[in-house]
Parts: sequence; C-alpha cells; structure tokens
Amino acid sequence: MQKQQRALVLCSGGLDSTTLLARVIESYGSQNVVALAVQYGQKHVRELQSAQAVADYYGVPLKMIDVAAIFADSSCSLLSHSDSEIPHESYDEQLSCTQDAPVVSTYVPFRNGLFLSCAASMALSLECSTLYYGAHHDDWAGDAYPDCSREFVEAMDSAIRLGSADQLHVEAPFVTWSKADIVAEGMRLGVPYELTWSCYEGGDEPCGKCATCIDRARAFEVNGLVDPLYMRKDAK
Amino acid sequence: MQKQQRALVLCSGGLDSTTLLARVIESYGSQNVVALAVQYGQKHVRELQSAQAVADYYGVPLKMIDVAAIFADSSCSLLSHSDSEIPHESYDEQLSCTQDAPVVSTYVPFRNGLFLSCAASMALSLECSTLYYGAHHDDWAGDAYPDCSREFVEAMDSAIRLGSADQLHVEAPFVTWSKADIVAEGMRLGVPYELTWSCYEGGDEPCGKCATCIDRARAFEVNGLVDPLYMRKDAK
Repeated sequence: MQKQQRALVLCSGGLDSTTLLARVIESYGSQNVVALAVQYGQKHVRELQSAQAVADYYGVPLKMIDVAAIFADSSCSLLSHSDSEIPHESYDEQLSCTQDAPVVSTYVPFRNGLFLSCAASMALSLECSTLYYGAHHDDWAGDAYPDCSREFVEAMDSAIRLGSADQLHVEAPFVTWSKADIVAEGMRLGVPYELTWSCYEGGDEPCGKCATCIDRARAFEVNGLVDPLYMRKDAK
Repeated sequence: MQKQQRALVLCSGGLDSTTLLARVIESYGSQNVVALAVQYGQKHVRELQSAQAVADYYGVPLKMIDVAAIFADSSCSLLSHSDSEIPHESYDEQLSCTQDAPVVSTYVPFRNGLFLSCAASMALSLECSTLYYGAHHDDWAGDAYPDCSREFVEAMDSAIRLGSADQLHVEAPFVTWSKADIVAEGMRLGVPYELTWSCYEGGDEPCGKCATCIDRARAFEVNGLVDPLYMRKDAK
C-alpha cells in the first residue's frame, strides 16, 4: 500500500493562507495536514489567535514557532520594537514615494524565505512531502513584496528540493491568482472568514486603512460580498 | 563617497567557516564584518564556544540565535533530544548502508537552508550586502549533505537575491574546494585552528572517529601538517 502523503501549510491567520488550508484539507484529509504559524515580532498577536481559531475549526494541529530574535535589528514598521508607523495607504501609493528603497516599509527582511525554511525543516521532521505557501499575485505585482513573487517561490522550491534530497517540495497554488480569486475559491470551500485576521494593526476591528485592509475589502467587493469582519462590526 | 560594503559570515566554530571568516576580514576589514552562529539543538555547546573564541580573536561581533525549537520533532542523531548514536565511520561508509534513506543520519532537516535564511534576515537588518557561507566540496560529493552542494547554494542565492529585491546575495567561495584546500588557505591567512572545533561529539578532545574528525585529520595530513587540536592532546 502506498504511504499516505502528508502536507504542511504555512498559516498566518489571514485570508489567503486560511483558504489554502481549506483547499489542502479538501485534498489530503485533515488527519494528514499540519499547520504552522510563526511569531516574528509582529505588533499584535491577533493574527496568531486567528491562526489558532482556524486550526481548531478544521481540527488540524497548529505548530507555533518564535523567530522574533532574528529581526531584533530590523527597522521594519510591522515589528513591535519599531517606532515607525504602519502606513495608512495602498501599496501603490507607498511605492510611489519610496524611490530610495526597493521595498515598502512593511517589508520584513527575507521574512517569507525564513518562514519557508522553518517550514521545510519542520515538514521534513514531520514526514510531510509537500509544503504549501499562500503567496498570491496582488502581493508581488507592483513589487510591494519581492518575497511573494513567482520567481522567488520557484527559487525556494528549487533550494528545498535540492537541500532535502528531493524529500520535500513547495506548492503555491495561488501565486498567479488575485485576492478576489482566492475569496471566490474560499466561498466554494465554505471558509470561515469571520475567524481570520488580515489588518496590520491589532485591535478588535480591522482599521480599514492599511494596505492589507484595502486589498481585503476590495477582494470581497469584486465578488459582490461584504467581508464578514465588517458585517460583525455593522451589526453592533 | 561610495558606501562601505558590509558582510555577514555564517560561523559554526569549525575549520571551514573560521577560514572563511579570516578571508572575508582580509577583504572587508574587521569593522565591516559580522559573524552569526546558530544554536540548533546540537548535542554539545563546544562548537558555539569555539565560534565565540574565534570572533573574539578577530575582534568581530558574534550574533547568536537559537532555532532548536524548529527541530523538536526531528530524529537526527546530531540533536541533543535524539537517542540515536552519532556514527563512528566515514560518510562513504555510512552512505553505503543507508539505501532506504537519501541522506546520512547526521543530516539535520534543511538545516543549512534555515541557517542561510536566518542569516539573510539578519544581514538585511544589519545593512550587509553579502552573506558568506562555508560549504565545501567534500561535504556534498557522495551526497552526504545535499544542503552543501553547489546547486543548492545557487538556488538559495537566487531566492535571497529575488526575495530581498537584490539588496543581498550569497558567496560560497569554497563550494568547489576540498577541505585540504581550505586548510592550505587557512595556513596562508594564519588561522588559529587551535580555537576551532569540528568533532560531532562534545568533550575536551576530538573523538577522532566521527566522519567530521576523519575528514579534518585528512585535510591536515594532505598539507603535511598535524591538526593543532591533536598536537595539544599529544603534549599532555
């Protein structure tokens, strides 16, 4: 009998990786899926709480690791030790004013490469043969996040295949999708978006002003829907 | 005036990375070099003490990070929580008896990919533009460590260039060199090999029997030299 394939999914508690988790569970069965969330010194724990709520909802184990010490010297505005404010504008607006820097201020240095490497080490330890990563097109079009691009994912996939003697590879099925495409897939899968969190700020409700809030709201709008996080807010 | 280039060197306290550190300091000047050592749950702290002694000798700051939690589920024989014995035979002998596994029992899952990713995140935070990695030919010839191969280094270099918007790249100048070539370069540079540590076991003296001890002794012999760690032992 062929050995059952197992998968590890990088989960942030956000919309993209939660949809990915639902899709991977649909293929593998929840008993063959492990989720991994990474604490990297983000300004709030809201997204990690969401990752736990999503894992509990789907009945999969959630591993958590803490790599915050690695970013101790970074000045990225997303990090809790940083004095910089998180910008309240879209990625396009931010990029038009950062001609001296090749990335936006919310770029955490090589964060996603580090996440994929942590996930690769854990996946191999847990005998998973596929590592799923929720990067999507909107995050790298316009160069906001170079570590979400298709070329980057392909290079990390090569490194992980080569560095593991082909025991593991990376799948990023959304890398050419828009966030609106992901929401459409999530509706098909019945993803509990009310449990997820995307906003860069903490708090009880999304700020509605940061780049990821703007992108998320637009993705629901394109599908003729209202984000359940806002519906909850409106109901109050 | 052009900004002074800065470099980060991955240092294990062993022979290869210490020689690399000496070479990078020769090019950049010690004031532009940062060393990074990684605690990953190895069975002994002897190599991290050596990394500190080497950094102190050269007057460069040594950053240390701890990623042991990531390997909590690994059964690799190098790790402190593992019950497996470290083999007392050469890599060739080990590989001839591991037909069911594509790697030796001292392969730590994607360890070097994780180290390079941690180093990339730190190097970017510290405004270094080059990341140096001491992989060499003997460690990947024969497939003992797939995460030391030239192809692996090239894939990680691509991932790091792409994921950092070309702010950082990897150099692995020893990747086609033998360990004997590295010792020859180290003699030219006056590397204090008596401060380094390569043995997989802890203790006051190298065991002389594990694969890395066998390789290290051979590298000195080829150069007509005796490893200063053994000279110290003989003097007792």
